[in-house]
Amino acid sequence: MRILGIDPGYAIVGFGIIDTEKNNEVIDYGVIETPKEDPLPIRLQHIEESLRVIFETYRPDEVAIEELFYFKNQKTVIQVAQARGVIVLASQKYCGRIFEYTPIQIKQALTGNGHAEKKQMQYMVKNVLGLSSIPKPDDAADALAVAICHSQINPRLNFNMM
Amino acid sequence: MRILGIDPGYAIVGFGIIDTEKNNEVIDYGVIETPKEDPLPIRLQHIEESLRVIFETYRPDEVAIEELFYFKNQKTVIQVAQARGVIVLASQKYCGRIFEYTPIQIKQALTGNGHAEKKQMQYMVKNVLGLSSIPKPDDAADALAVAICHSQINPRLNFNMM
Repeated sequence: MRILGIDPGYAIVGFGIIDTEKNNEVIDYGVIETPKEDPLPIRLQHIEESLRVIFETYRPDEVAIEELFYFKNQKTVIQVAQARGVIVLASQKYCGRIFEYTPIQIKQALTGNGHAEKKQMQYMVKNVLGLSSIPKPDDAADALAVAICHSQINPRLNFNMM
Repeated sequence: MRILGIDPGYAIVGFGIIDTEKNNEVIDYGVIETPKEDPLPIRLQHIEESLRVIFETYRPDEVAIEELFYFKNQKTVIQVAQARGVIVLASQKYCGRIFEYTPIQIKQALTGNGHAEKKQMQYMVKNVLGLSSIPKPDDAADALAVAICHSQINPRLNFNMM
């Protein structure tokens, strides 16, 4: 089964695709970046278009998206949540099987510690996926972590399905 | 010129269309409601689909959307912002000319007082649009207020254009 993991963002959206039938082989990973100088509607359209290409290219069976949690900055949370709405809608239109996980669930699944540090998470992403180095940038590694988290939960239970 | 005003929401999205060349004639108004029992992806898809129908039916020249501001409840702001992302994207795809206004700008435009009460706003919506009664529900009246606010600002200045 192909899983697309997504780390939602407004300026940068991380994505990572793994194949669970091939021992969590990494199919691809990277980021969608939206130019600061573009207005909100154009940036949202850019995210949707890029996701459409990713869905059409890799045809994932399921999508795992990180949940948004507390932010200190109210403006940031609104921007990221607006982008996340677009990401969830695109996932619904192009796949239809969407699951979400909190940062604590993802850390717990990868390291056994819901409050693990970033370095430890990145080390585990590299190890679990059998990569020679830590995937860059951080947002892509975060997206792969969401995909791994989902691969460790039996999807037939529909746990966390949105 | 036809203006579509939108009051963004997750459970209820208000909309109202006015024609400025016909002395702010009301073309239509109402709400899009998303069922509580549906999961987020389905509710977002419902909002997008309903907006598509509104755009195709009324073909507005410009869209005016209320800005999100401070919320007490972090969960609510994330939900509403996710829906607003979908609303902005649909407006971009089906129209392309999008403007946004803060609640204070809208109140100021309609009543001359940026902190006017809801009752006063609804009274002004009814009067400016020459209606026999206050439009119901409140979210539809709020959407018409955004459209009126936009009609009072010269769009050629591209003031507040997103």
